[in-house]
This record gives sequence, C-alpha cells and structure tokens, in this order.
Amino acid sequence: MKNLLDIYARKKKDIAAIEKELEESVYTDHAMLKETSLHLLKAGGKRIRPVFVLLSGEFGHYQLQTMKHVAVPLELIHMATLVHDDVIDDADTRRGQLTVRSKWDNRIAMYTGDYIFAKALGVITQIHKPAVHQIMSKAIVEMSIGEMEQIRFFFNAEQTIRDYLLRIRRKTALLIAISCQLGAMAADAPDWVSNKLYSFGYNVGMCFQIRDDILDLIGTEKQLGKPPGNDVKQGNITLPVLFAMQNPELKPLILSELDRIHKLDGQTDVSRFLDIIRNSEGIDRADALSQKYIDKAIAALDQLPDKQAKKDLIEVAYFIGNRSY
Amino acid sequence: MKNLLDIYARKKKDIAAIEKELEESVYTDHAMLKETSLHLLKAGGKRIRPVFVLLSGEFGHYQLQTMKHVAVPLELIHMATLVHDDVIDDADTRRGQLTVRSKWDNRIAMYTGDYIFAKALGVITQIHKPAVHQIMSKAIVEMSIGEMEQIRFFFNAEQTIRDYLLRIRRKTALLIAISCQLGAMAADAPDWVSNKLYSFGYNVGMCFQIRDDILDLIGTEKQLGKPPGNDVKQGNITLPVLFAMQNPELKPLILSELDRIHKLDGQTDVSRFLDIIRNSEGIDRADALSQKYIDKAIAALDQLPDKQAKKDLIEVAYFIGNRSY
Repeated sequence: MKNLLDIYARKKKDIAAIEKELEESVYTDHAMLKETSLHLLKAGGKRIRPVFVLLSGEFGHYQLQTMKHVAVPLELIHMATLVHDDVIDDADTRRGQLTVRSKWDNRIAMYTGDYIFAKALGVITQIHKPAVHQIMSKAIVEMSIGEMEQIRFFFNAEQTIRDYLLRIRRKTALLIAISCQLGAMAADAPDWVSNKLYSFGYNVGMCFQIRDDILDLIGTEKQLGKPPGNDVKQGNITLPVLFAMQNPELKPLILSELDRIHKLDGQTDVSRFLDIIRNSEGIDRADALSQKYIDKAIAALDQLPDKQAKKDLIEVAYFIGNRSY
Repeated sequence: MKNLLDIYARKKKDIAAIEKELEESVYTDHAMLKETSLHLLKAGGKRIRPVFVLLSGEFGHYQLQTMKHVAVPLELIHMATLVHDDVIDDADTRRGQLTVRSKWDNRIAMYTGDYIFAKALGVITQIHKPAVHQIMSKAIVEMSIGEMEQIRFFFNAEQTIRDYLLRIRRKTALLIAISCQLGAMAADAPDWVSNKLYSFGYNVGMCFQIRDDILDLIGTEKQLGKPPGNDVKQGNITLPVLFAMQNPELKPLILSELDRIHKLDGQTDVSRFLDIIRNSEGIDRADALSQKYIDKAIAALDQLPDKQAKKDLIEVAYFIGNRSY
C-alpha cells in the first residue's frame, strides 16, 4: 500500500499539507502525550481516509482549508481506535513498529487514544454544519459497538458470515464511507452526490477489510510487518475461515485447531491452521466477494460527473481490490 | 451528597427528565453494552453537572429540551472518564457498587467508556452552536491530558501543590466549569453571564475535588462506599498529604510510608499513613483552601441578577463546601 500515494500524485501537495496538519493537531506541551501521539503518526499508515476526503471534495467546491478540517479528524479517529484495539489485542507491533501499549503500557495507550480522539473532535468543530457532526457521531457510536462485538465473537466458531460482515462494516467500512460522504458534504456537493460517495466508500471499505483479513492468512512477515496468523491468535475468525468451514471435511480440522489455539491463548504456532485455510477454497471465495464489493463501489460512481477525481477514485478502488501488501 | 436533590426540590421534575434522557441516550440493542452502560447509570452519582446546567440555564431563556442536550452529554462524559479511570486505578468498587472493570473486565470497561463518550457526542450535536462544541472539545482535551498527568505523578513525592491544583483543575474543575458556562450559553445568556458562571463552576469544582480528597483520608468505609485511603493505595498524593509534608518532622515519616506502600503496590494496610495525615495540619489547611474556593465561587455570582437560580447555586456551593459524604 506504500505506493498508493503514487497513484494520485496529483494530490501530493494537499496530502502533504494534511500530514503537516495531523502533526500540528496532536501537538501538546505534555512530553509523554507528544511522544506517544507522534510515535503513532510517524508509524505512518495508508492515509486512505484523508485521500478519500480530498477526492470526494472535488465533487463540490474544493477548498483545502475546509478539506483539512474533515480529513484530519477522520484520520485521528482511525488512529485512536487503532491504539485502543492494540490494548484489546495485546498487539506488540503494528506496521512493523512497536505499539504504544508495548512500548509504554496499556494505561498509557488507553489515554493516548482518548487524547487523540478528543483532538479529533476539536478539529471537526471548525466545520459549522450540524449534519456533518451528526453523521460523524453516529459512525463513532457504531464503531464502538463494533469493537465490543469483536470481543464477543473471539474464538466463536458459531458465528455466521452475516455476523462477520456486520462486524467489518462497523469496524472499517463505515469510517471510510463517511470519509467520502463528509468530504463531499463539507465542499457543499449536492446530497445525491455525497450519498453516492458514501456508497462507494462503504463498498471499498468492505473490500479493504476482507483483503486485510486474507492477507493476514496468506501474507509473509515481510509483507505484513508482523507474522501472519495474527487474527486467529487473537481469536478473530475471518471470512476465509468461515468459508473454509463450510467444507464438511475441513470443518472438524479447523474447529480442533481453533480449540487448541484458544486453549493456549494464541501463544502457539499456527502454521497448521494457516495451511488448512490456504489449501481450502476459503481464500478464493473471500477474494471473489471482495471483488464484488469493488464492482459495487465503482458502480456507485456511475452517475457522478466525469471528473479526474472520479477516475482517481476508481483507480484507488482497483488498487485496494488488488493489493497484496 | 445523596441529599443534594433536596436542596433544589424546585428542579426535581427537570432533573427526573434528564435522568430519563440519560437512560434513553445510552440505549442500544447490544446486550452487553446495554448492561454495562445501565450498570453505570444505575450506580447513581451526584448529577452535579446536570444540576449546574439547569440552574445556569435560568440566566437565559430556559427551555428544558435545550438544557437536556447539554446536561446529558456532560454527565455522560463524566461517566465515560470514570470507567476509564477505574481501568487505570484497578478500582473494584465505586459508590459501593462493583465497577465495570471488576464485574466484567478491563477491555469491556475501555470500550464501554468509548461507547458512552460517543453517545455523548451524538447528543450534543443537537445544539447548533459552534462555540459550544469548541468549548466542550477543548475541555475534553484538557481532561485527557489531566488523566495522563495523574499517571505521571503516582507516588511522586516531589510534586508541588501547584502540580496538584493543575491536575484537579483538569480532572474535575473544568468539566463543572463548562457545565455552568454551556448551560448559560445554550440558553442564550449574555457572554459576561456565562463567563461568570464558568468562574463559579471552576471554583466549586476545585473545592469539590479537594473535599473529595480530604474525605478519602478521613471518611469511614460507610460514608465513602469504599475503604478510606484509596488514593494513596493508587499512588495519588493529594493536597492534605502535600500540606502535611511541609512539616519537617512529618515529612520523613510520610515519605517512608509512601515508599512502603509503593513497593507493595498499594496492597497493604494504610492505617498508619492515614493516622499521620489525620493528626497533621494537612486536613485543616486543605479544608481552609477549599473554603477559599467556595468564597471565590460565590463572589463570581455577585453581579448576576438576583434570581432564585442564583440562591440555589449559592446553596449548592455551600453544600459542596461542607459535604461530609
């Protein structure tokens, strides 16, 4: 995903401006908070949400200043949820870097998340549109429910594909969807346009998370910045696994592996589990579903005016649909 | 504090309406979140912030509907910080009830806090005044810095009284200050009025926290709903202790007790420590300072019109200045 920026070199200057604003937005005199927040920012990330805000803003009256006040809080909210997720997951590394909770501790990670989240709210207050605030707060509520859901479904092999899809909807797709929607709304694009962009973002987000979950099963440590099989170690049962379990021959093998990993609290080698899933149809079927989401995403753009931003959005969507790291 | 409601029986109906709205505001289909949130709500609390919102609103055009949309989020924010604080403090009980983290676990407490906080934001979006949002988000940022500060100063005997005051300002006084200020602003009271009310709330809040810290040292388990000495067990060094340490004879005794308690991670009897502080001048000096804050609070109301709300605010302030539970 590192090369995502190359795809839309056109927006490079504005993306750089947002990067700068992100750093300034978390600035504080408090030494430790400054350190933890910058650590998170410097760890990088794909900045997909800001990019979608910018591209969507081009369907209205694009002003970088306004776009910043939407892009920055959405990225900060994303970051805040990552730190809290790391607490829950006992994650030691993310993107190949030490997490806040492992470099400092869980308490500090929790408060760093709270702080970054609070800063996000501060920035969005600069947008004086009640509808923007309402959409954002509703999405945040859904996201926090999704986080709780994730705990409930850890190592739960009874869950359905619908449970999984609902979970990634809340966990990932909603925030990407509103990044597109709010980018357009902040730029005063017509409602039908921001709604179409919401739908685009939602479908891209679903694809994005499915691919993320596939990569955790088939990627190498080098590609992922962490060893594969992280999800199952935490008890996170993902789409390829659910598809693989539909094969009656594989199901007992998978269940027994899940049971073993669960009993050892994830502190075990999971290569046998990975082999079973990799050799099943689960990966291909999950991949096919992720492609369907990309098709839907692109179809959502159909009636939008033929601008460069539309071409860019399509390109990013294809990129996400094909990403292998 | 249970009798606080009797003081302003006049607002009983509106307070009941807010109580109902609080319950509705955290409603969710999600079984566990519903349970944890209602557990928190039912544990009660003093509802000081909503009361201050209501009384301050009377200095403008008081409308219950508007007041609700300020009072509810401020109380929810308060609750959300309490759940996160319980995670940090490893607190097992609060107000005589099991905490979320002890009844469920730390992960669930963290996400319950995130959820309640998100719900608070949802409610405040109903107030279409950018200044209200800006003031609130700034206060939340300060509060989260204050939480981090608290960790930094655990068992730090080098801290000054200024460090302590700055900490309780962020931890407690700011949210009470903006409860008064935003109550007035939402009711379209003039700026000078909402500023005076901010000052009132700030000083009451400082007094409130100092008295809370005194009570943790001199209260009985029955009064507190938890054993006294909780603060020092967590490493939280409060004003009476800092005053007591100014006595050169007591200082080495206190330091050695703090050191012992720290080494045992708070898992020890602290009655000797409590005795030293109780027999020092620390309690009286902290009490005297808390009274000064009450005097300042009441002085801040001087120029406000002589309404019943003003009398009520003064009465609540005196009550907080004298509270013994």
